[in-house]
Amino acid sequence: MAAPSLQVSRRQRATPYTPRVEALGVSGYSVVNHTILPKGFRRTVEEDYWHLKSGVQLWDVGCQRQVELQGPDAAFLAQLMTPRDLRNAKIGQCLYVPMVDESGGMLNDPVILKLAEDHYWFSISDSDVLLWAKGLAYGLGLNVAIDEPDVWPLAVQGPKSDELMARIFGDAVRDIGFFRFRKLDFEGHQLVVARSGFSKQGGFEIYVDQFSLGGRVWDVLWDAGGDLDLSPGCPNLIERIEGGLLSYGNEMTRAENPLECGLESYCQLDGSLDYIGKLALLEIASNGHQRMIRGLIFGGDACPACQRPWPISVDRRQVGYVTSAIWSPRFRRNVALAMLERGYWEPGTAVAIDWGDGIDRRGIVTDLPMEGA
Amino acid sequence: MAAPSLQVSRRQRATPYTPRVEALGVSGYSVVNHTILPKGFRRTVEEDYWHLKSGVQLWDVGCQRQVELQGPDAAFLAQLMTPRDLRNAKIGQCLYVPMVDESGGMLNDPVILKLAEDHYWFSISDSDVLLWAKGLAYGLGLNVAIDEPDVWPLAVQGPKSDELMARIFGDAVRDIGFFRFRKLDFEGHQLVVARSGFSKQGGFEIYVDQFSLGGRVWDVLWDAGGDLDLSPGCPNLIERIEGGLLSYGNEMTRAENPLECGLESYCQLDGSLDYIGKLALLEIASNGHQRMIRGLIFGGDACPACQRPWPISVDRRQVGYVTSAIWSPRFRRNVALAMLERGYWEPGTAVAIDWGDGIDRRGIVTDLPMEGA
Repeated sequence: MAAPSLQVSRRQRATPYTPRVEALGVSGYSVVNHTILPKGFRRTVEEDYWHLKSGVQLWDVGCQRQVELQGPDAAFLAQLMTPRDLRNAKIGQCLYVPMVDESGGMLNDPVILKLAEDHYWFSISDSDVLLWAKGLAYGLGLNVAIDEPDVWPLAVQGPKSDELMARIFGDAVRDIGFFRFRKLDFEGHQLVVARSGFSKQGGFEIYVDQFSLGGRVWDVLWDAGGDLDLSPGCPNLIERIEGGLLSYGNEMTRAENPLECGLESYCQLDGSLDYIGKLALLEIASNGHQRMIRGLIFGGDACPACQRPWPISVDRRQVGYVTSAIWSPRFRRNVALAMLERGYWEPGTAVAIDWGDGIDRRGIVTDLPMEGA
Repeated sequence: MAAPSLQVSRRQRATPYTPRVEALGVSGYSVVNHTILPKGFRRTVEEDYWHLKSGVQLWDVGCQRQVELQGPDAAFLAQLMTPRDLRNAKIGQCLYVPMVDESGGMLNDPVILKLAEDHYWFSISDSDVLLWAKGLAYGLGLNVAIDEPDVWPLAVQGPKSDELMARIFGDAVRDIGFFRFRKLDFEGHQLVVARSGFSKQGGFEIYVDQFSLGGRVWDVLWDAGGDLDLSPGCPNLIERIEGGLLSYGNEMTRAENPLECGLESYCQLDGSLDYIGKLALLEIASNGHQRMIRGLIFGGDACPACQRPWPISVDRRQVGYVTSAIWSPRFRRNVALAMLERGYWEPGTAVAIDWGDGIDRRGIVTDLPMEGA
């Protein structure tokens, strides 16, 4: 059976869940980390948005590949790769971290799972962190094994996630704290289960650590959710924008630094910690960063997909750009994520957006997450 | 205008040629280096195959991103990153090179363009070589600038390529040797033009070094080719398999080494040259590699797309796997690229292929390129 809209191959990898999502009518794929990510099912993005806020969804996020660091220098390398202070990180903790290069440009924004003092998984967004880590380790002569393990995350997202998960993994899942994980039994396999995921509606990510087990985990969850309004799903662009969840490659690239991306609280900036990009970030912090990510609500009919950054202007001068945008059924206006220059990023600032047809639509800068998200 | 089958965004980048290929009816995209690659137009893969062997095609290969090394340590780093001996490389030369990690596993197979003694472009296949290079440079403390320049290759492929190119760039293009490049004038811009490309039908790649110039280059070529049976095109899977052109991520991954991939002639193995993976490759060479890439011709109706490696067996024992396969109208049989164990890779060996339905089809191992390709 061919994929609906993108050729799957060894290069553009299927996941353990691909046969399930195809049977359920997946309507298209994106590609993340050389792996396919479902983009929608038999509903509109708007229907999916309302469902995610009320029910529970299974997401094939096998594309969230893991980069595993293990060995005597694993902790050293992990710290080198992020400005976030890992010195007090606990085993069982998930840590969202910016990852930057020597000039402070964003390279990725993984979630680190600390499995042991000498064992880490970086659950990555869309860039080959494996090659960055291997290059550093080779160049610095570190004693650390770096690999991509056979791990295929499956997300359970939405307000009814706790109930569904408890039916399979027991009430222990209810006690997992936000951005914490536990190893829980699934038919004799100990699986890492974390309270995390790429939505603001609550839920879990199950790190299925064996490709051949994935279909079974999906099926057991699917069969248990019949009365819980369970459906297949995927990251929802409306919910993501309103919730202020950034996407590497869209909001963040090497051209943006973490302070501009609103990630300053994840950066250790007192100079007491060594990591790649430290000098650059200290200088940016001392000068004050010149741009900031914000929300934007703007008029016009439903906007097209944002394929390239759209210019934002004030009095015909460009003061920023839109990176992701979509029609919001809740605001009955378009919503967007936008990078804005200093002086124009205060919530309430009036700006103009041109989505490529030469017409200026009026917009208002907002906080993130947006009100009520 | 939405992309036909894959959402284009800042993350899944459009190229300068995207509006042109969409106007010409592109039917789908693949994603390479976070950039979209057309997969077909208004013809079948078979029709496109015959056309590529007789006419001339314009290919949007903007996804062949460049990793630029420039500075005092550029030559040192370039050599470190490949087993191919670059010591006698000339300015103006294109060099196809395997790129491996410390254990000899394939990381990429770029074409290096030597622009100056201290200036290289790596025209890469699908992995973030930029991060590998940056990690190495950071770890080793090298004095080299590494970046992705604003370069968007456009390929002209097929037997009538010389005629089309000469109409735009003058007869000088006819004198460009195979895997050589020259800088030629295009309306006042000096563009790198190389005799190269991902087909065996001859042609050129134009390294358009300014996004905003791309549409104009496409249009001028398009308008000049009216009488030359010019059409839009893209890498053709039938032609690629018959011609033995390997695809990184399909035939080659970190799990394969260059000797297995038939790239031994691109590896300096006398020990006199230092590069990453040298010890591993010397050991593999001394023990003899245990697998080899080959062609395969096999029966049955037209096979499905190869989404995961298909097992190849002899007497019910697995002796290899298929990585890419498609129906060949020329052989009126299926053709494939396959990795085969020692003892089973001799051309003429009879094997069985199971493409996932439990049925063994009979096949014969062939040389690469296949006969008449």
